[in-house]
Amino acid sequence: MQTALKAATIGPRGANPLVGSILVDERGRVLAAGHHRGAGTYHAERDCLASALAAGITDFSATKLYTTLEPCTHYGRQPACTDLITEAGIPTVLIGARDPSTNGGGVEVLRSRGTEVVDGLLRKQCEQLNHRWNRAVKEDRIFVTVHLAQSIDARIAAADGTSQWITSETSREHTHRIRQRVDAILVGTNTVTTDDPRLTARDERGALTPGQPLRAVMGRSEIPDLAQLTQGRPEGEGWIHLRTRDPLTALRTLAETQHNGHPVKHVLVEGGQSVLSAFFAADLVDEIFVYTAPLILGTGRASLTDIGVTTLAEARRYTLDAADGGPTTIMNNDVCIHLQPEPKGAH
Amino acid sequence: MQTALKAATIGPRGANPLVGSILVDERGRVLAAGHHRGAGTYHAERDCLASALAAGITDFSATKLYTTLEPCTHYGRQPACTDLITEAGIPTVLIGARDPSTNGGGVEVLRSRGTEVVDGLLRKQCEQLNHRWNRAVKEDRIFVTVHLAQSIDARIAAADGTSQWITSETSREHTHRIRQRVDAILVGTNTVTTDDPRLTARDERGALTPGQPLRAVMGRSEIPDLAQLTQGRPEGEGWIHLRTRDPLTALRTLAETQHNGHPVKHVLVEGGQSVLSAFFAADLVDEIFVYTAPLILGTGRASLTDIGVTTLAEARRYTLDAADGGPTTIMNNDVCIHLQPEPKGAH
Ligand SMILES: NC(=O)c1ccc[n+]([C@@H]2O[C@H](COP(=O)([O-])OP(=O)(O)OC[C@H]3O[C@@H](n4cnc5c(N)ncnc54)[C@H](OP(=O)(O)O)[C@@H]3O)[C@@H](O)[C@H]2O)c1
Ligand SMILES: NC(=O)c1ccc[n+]([C@@H]2O[C@H](COP(=O)([O-])OP(=O)(O)OC[C@H]3O[C@@H](n4cnc5c(N)ncnc54)[C@H](OP(=O)(O)O)[C@@H]3O)[C@@H](O)[C@H]2O)c1
Repeated sequence: MQTALKAATIGPRGANPLVGSILVDERGRVLAAGHHRGAGTYHAERDCLASALAAGITDFSATKLYTTLEPCTHYGRQPACTDLITEAGIPTVLIGARDPSTNGGGVEVLRSRGTEVVDGLLRKQCEQLNHRWNRAVKEDRIFVTVHLAQSIDARIAAADGTSQWITSETSREHTHRIRQRVDAILVGTNTVTTDDPRLTARDERGALTPGQPLRAVMGRSEIPDLAQLTQGRPEGEGWIHLRTRDPLTALRTLAETQHNGHPVKHVLVEGGQSVLSAFFAADLVDEIFVYTAPLILGTGRASLTDIGVTTLAEARRYTLDAADGGPTTIMNNDVCIHLQPEPKGAH
Repeated sequence: MQTALKAATIGPRGANPLVGSILVDERGRVLAAGHHRGAGTYHAERDCLASALAAGITDFSATKLYTTLEPCTHYGRQPACTDLITEAGIPTVLIGARDPSTNGGGVEVLRSRGTEVVDGLLRKQCEQLNHRWNRAVKEDRIFVTVHLAQSIDARIAAADGTSQWITSETSREHTHRIRQRVDAILVGTNTVTTDDPRLTARDERGALTPGQPLRAVMGRSEIPDLAQLTQGRPEGEGWIHLRTRDPLTALRTLAETQHNGHPVKHVLVEGGQSVLSAFFAADLVDEIFVYTAPLILGTGRASLTDIGVTTLAEARRYTLDAADGGPTTIMNNDVCIHLQPEPKGAH
């Protein structure tokens, strides 16, 4: 299961949990490994079975499948993993954590079909792996990723407002890759007025990538008619104005919004300072990428403002995230730190 | 020379430059490598010769020595490298950069003794390696290392002033290792009044390490009689009050101060915000360690304040430093970023 856990952390966080699976023979030797690469791609079990097939394995009658999360029972964008396991004829499945979402129930389904199921192997670690995803499921809300692009002294603009560009092209390309995998990008009304961003996902050549995310603006002020993010189209056509200052309300509205043929399940909150701080204050940030550019400004706009913390013991605490490329990545001369909230009771 | 450059970057920055040396045989195979580990330790050439001797090499008549910096001619804490080279009987020495300090002149000394000297191999890279050290020599001032220990949003204290501890024990141990290698630690008068720090170098058990650095306080206000850093002793006995607000004046006074039997050549500026910002504003910071603790405070004291930059183009720019442990190190849950100023003309 440790091997499966390790495979799981290769994948990105988001609408779906991180999952890793390995297939072993009767002597415990690893025949194949698989992991989930994010919404719309193969589930870890299927990825693992696909590698096994590619390696020429056709007889699964003496194999065991370890998987960090209960196999799904649901036909969504992907076939149900319980069915794939039954069809392959894998006699034994060892499961880490149960799936708290509507895809759960795989243990019972497999048992009813005569599969031997060992449930709860390294359960705690398998649950921890997706502790914020589990929490989002329990709170019935979408998953929130945040990015901060700042100087060493956590400024996002100099005193005179100049801010383009603090971080390197490599960091900005990374942001564009995250934009590609989320369902929506969210900014505050003031960022629209000040920066007039396009909020599109672009490749290294600047061309739009397929399946653009929904562009969402949060706040009560009106959005200028000529704002670039509208692309001259009426609201509802690729963009939405969330007329609220409450982050949870914003997330609920996004969850009810269809985009690219399915509801929004993962949002990237890009800024500015006020909107980001509101999400941090409400403890609604599930994942953070902090890009630190190697420069010092001294004054200018800070990346964050009041989040309701007055003393050190109340600080919002995070932990380095080993998933999706690891806790630190050098991006040209910038350092990107990948974090997730500390699991409750860890401090 | 590339191999020698790589060896050089293992060492720490400070009073002495980074230097790497390799010894090769007539076919260019590397017989031994050496690097300098900081003031008071073997020079790179000697370190390299010591490895060669340890490997059983006694005949140097067909070897060549590559060294990133001109060998020294000076008997200081270490014997002159030119003499070691002559005694060993190495016929050919290939040199990267010239030594701009009073230790220079090795090329001429070696040539006068009949050694073949190739001068200026990868000179630019060898000079870049120590570009700030070279500059400190030219400006006739001591070398300045700075540490910033801050939250993700670059705060060093929460709104109510609580600040102990933002960073992890592992980060603080690292700071103590840097304290051990510098000649002096400098803070502002306000840090003394507010935090009453001891400013000693301690090992993991909290015991004082041998050869404590000089404790220096900068600013015009008086230091409280009972301040811990005085250890109940009069000024001049382990501590000094620099009654100035000018960083260069402070550095000059330190350079004239004898401590542990020699003049101060390397200072660690630890804080607070005002004193650090003054050093950054004057472009007198040669090396930075930024410890980022994975927490967010939103408000509270910022790690830095005005450094005279009003627009992004004027920002002080740094570059990731591969020396001394590399550009990023995970210290428990903190990330330490190691930086040096960008060489002039690089941006
Ligand atoms: N470096 C980066 O990564 C980055 C990214 C984005 C933006 N920025 C910079 O950030 C700056 C804008 O920051 P900002 O803080 O002024 O803008 P913002 O967060 O984009 O927008 C602030 C506005 O959002 C609305 N809002 C919605 N929910 C809110 C809440 N819970 N609390 C407070 N306000 C809420 C308010 O306007 P209503 O009156 O409309 O409700 C508020 O005035 C710009 O200078 C931009 O360049 C930097
Ligand atoms: N997290 C960390 O790593 C760390 C480390 C150290 C301190 N701190 C925190 O930093 C805070 C203190 O910061 P601070 O900025 O108030 O104190 P500071 O920089 O230690 O001291 C400020 C004082 O230094 C004197 N000074 C000397 N040269 C100056 C110059 N060029 N410009 C301005 N002042 C100069 C001034 O006093 P005179 O009137 O005496 O000239 C000034 O009031 C404390 O809360 C402490 O906890 C944090």
